Amino acid sequence: MVIPSLIQHKRDGHPLSPEQWAGLIREYTAGRVPDYQMAALLMAVVWRGLEPTELTALTDAMLESGDRLRFDGFALPRVDKHSTGGIGDKVSLLLAPMVASCGVAVPMMSGRGLGHTGGTLDKLESIPGFRTNLSLGEARAQVERLGCAMLGQTAEIAPADKRLYALRDVTGTVESIPLISASIMSKKLAEGLTGLVLDVKTGSGAFLPETPRALELARTMIGLAQTHRCPTVALLTAMDRPLGRSCGNSLEVEESIQGLRGEGPPDLMEVTYALGVEMLLLAGTDRDAAAARARLEQSVMSGRALSKFQEIIEAQGGDPRVVEDPELLPQADEVEIFRAERDGVASRVEPRRIGQAIVELGGGRRTIEDAIDPGVGFVIPVKPGDPVREGEPLASIFARDRDGVRLGIEALREAIVVGETGSSTPLITHRVTSAGVEDLT
Amino acid sequence: MVIPSLIQHKRDGHPLSPEQWAGLIREYTAGRVPDYQMAALLMAVVWRGLEPTELTALTDAMLESGDRLRFDGFALPRVDKHSTGGIGDKVSLLLAPMVASCGVAVPMMSGRGLGHTGGTLDKLESIPGFRTNLSLGEARAQVERLGCAMLGQTAEIAPADKRLYALRDVTGTVESIPLISASIMSKKLAEGLTGLVLDVKTGSGAFLPETPRALELARTMIGLAQTHRCPTVALLTAMDRPLGRSCGNSLEVEESIQGLRGEGPPDLMEVTYALGVEMLLLAGTDRDAAAARARLEQSVMSGRALSKFQEIIEAQGGDPRVVEDPELLPQADEVEIFRAERDGVASRVEPRRIGQAIVELGGGRRTIEDAIDPGVGFVIPVKPGDPVREGEPLASIFARDRDGVRLGIEALREAIVVGETGSSTPLITHRVTSAGVEDLT
Repeated sequence: MVIPSLIQHKRDGHPLSPEQWAGLIREYTAGRVPDYQMAALLMAVVWRGLEPTELTALTDAMLESGDRLRFDGFALPRVDKHSTGGIGDKVSLLLAPMVASCGVAVPMMSGRGLGHTGGTLDKLESIPGFRTNLSLGEARAQVERLGCAMLGQTAEIAPADKRLYALRDVTGTVESIPLISASIMSKKLAEGLTGLVLDVKTGSGAFLPETPRALELARTMIGLAQTHRCPTVALLTAMDRPLGRSCGNSLEVEESIQGLRGEGPPDLMEVTYALGVEMLLLAGTDRDAAAARARLEQSVMSGRALSKFQEIIEAQGGDPRVVEDPELLPQADEVEIFRAERDGVASRVEPRRIGQAIVELGGGRRTIEDAIDPGVGFVIPVKPGDPVREGEPLASIFARDRDGVRLGIEALREAIVVGETGSSTPLITHRVTSAGVEDLT
Repeated sequence: MVIPSLIQHKRDGHPLSPEQWAGLIREYTAGRVPDYQMAALLMAVVWRGLEPTELTALTDAMLESGDRLRFDGFALPRVDKHSTGGIGDKVSLLLAPMVASCGVAVPMMSGRGLGHTGGTLDKLESIPGFRTNLSLGEARAQVERLGCAMLGQTAEIAPADKRLYALRDVTGTVESIPLISASIMSKKLAEGLTGLVLDVKTGSGAFLPETPRALELARTMIGLAQTHRCPTVALLTAMDRPLGRSCGNSLEVEESIQGLRGEGPPDLMEVTYALGVEMLLLAGTDRDAAAARARLEQSVMSGRALSKFQEIIEAQGGDPRVVEDPELLPQADEVEIFRAERDGVASRVEPRRIGQAIVELGGGRRTIEDAIDPGVGFVIPVKPGDPVREGEPLASIFARDRDGVRLGIEALREAIVVGETGSSTPLITHRVTSAGVEDLT
């Protein structure tokens, strides 16, 4: 295997064969291809893209570099949801117990926050004692017993992806739709799923803000899933403002518990139900969306979803009393109200700025080794299009100290723009399946 | 300096500032930027190119990473010639003594052969005792005394280029006009020249076979030289067949000596004189091309050019008797005549195949550490367009043993194509200066 020739071939716009991709990833994982050659190849992929056969081969190679969750002889359908990441996006915390309480298994492998977006693992770990580093054996046993496990990517899953991701992060080769798709799907396909729902965010706070690029990402991941016989549906949802009201780890767990009680903010519940409906339809529990929606609402109204969340927390070592008493979650020392400085209409609530502020407050990471403060964050009830009056509370800041409060005020002044006019964009804009794209607006 | 952001910036098609280029090369040379980040950046440069200000900054940074030949207080004009590399291209061996014997200093820094093209250093070192690893001090002293020194790139010259070139070689990032230009010019500008002539090869055996790309390379290097106030002229010359008859190290030295006696093959002499005329015009020894040409011919006819070559050989530790007795050069053990297998016209004499065959015979390198056998090679008098008769000698093979002869026959069967028709393309097609391109055909 002559690596410079492979790099040149890709550089000149020609596809590599599946055998070449398999060999490359195998040799790279074994430490026989140096990082500098892989970095040049990755940049050539950012430039030239990947043909479908290449994408499949790369994803397979990454998947095969590790182990997977195995559910041989397990009867229930297994469905997961993956989000491309946003601010205030605590949907996984609601969906996993809701769907599991409807008799569908949810083996959910999530990530940590890095950059301006949060991570499900960090949110769960704000529950005292909650352990996310389950082994594959523990996760399987818990899924079989409770219908759900919420864990991090173990060292056994797609180690090639882990190494490649770290390299991409420092070589400017993250922003590539095929590389993002291969990275996500090599992990999701290791979950042993019978169906997958993707929440692809669009708008200024999303990883890929423009709708056409988000659609391309959705189609690419769906195509990949199809070659692995994992039926997959994607919804494009708005991330030009935070989802729900709470942003920050403890605060989001608290809002998730409210949501599981049927008391969540409307936008959060709408996205959660829409994604849940797709999960149930893929699992085959219901004939149509209306029936699936009714089933999910019933799981909330009956209290079964919240009980399921409590069971999961307890099974994973967390304190189950947080469900009844959210004050057991880590709390911020300083809380301050942020008020409107003029009359008008909220024209923007900029999620990216809020996400950056959470990092500044200590609630997110700058590097993967950073410890985080789960108590800090924001509660922002105001949404674009809402009329506001001078002096009216627009948000609350939860900080470690007065310096944090000051940083929070500064961030909210930039993030919440009050002008003459403003309007809310649609929350769910497109539904993508292997059959095509539906515009829902 | 946040390297991933710089890489992303370049990847997205935006130029880096001169300060960013300077910082990058400084940090890379100091070992503070890892190869994997530089490799990704180099691929982004292959993709996006470099704007003129970036190219100048990169070249400057590479030049400034090392020392240069300094000729303070030295009166003579100093001119060098650089070729982009070909088969049978021994022009430097003729030009350096010819031009030096016309009263123009030639501080010539050359490279080794790698890949299918030969290198001037390897040819010179086939002269018993010839030493090319002169220090900058030795080179300067010899140029002042004899008007010429022929040396290799010392460790003191552009060390950043040396490290970058090694990285490009293994990461598929060699074929980039700005990177090639920066690499060549960072070394040539370190020679302390008052003028430079470029021989940019075109045709199947050239590094950049297509004329438009070769012209772009010529223009890019001339632009770079201009910002460094080094007047530069380029000729585009044919490399769709070998230059002259001899291909291989000792054989090319022998042909160079014949050329310096006025007995060289017409194509070799034509290219040599054309480049030499440009060197003398840049040096200002003559008003016009005809006068310069006459001066060069006179240097050959009078024997001064050959004596100069002998002086250079002697000064650099070589055996000066080779000039009188080329049999003192390393000789091949086996010589075999290759004959035409049919009547017809030579339609192709493929230089790339011949260059590869020299490597197979042991006369070139596969890796930079390989030792080479100076005696092996080919003498190929036949040129495209020549009529040939079955059984007529077309070439001679010079090999180490019978296996080499067999390899040589196989190569010549592929390289020399006899068909119904054939014609010779023009030898010198374009002249490029800072004022523009002249088509000479």
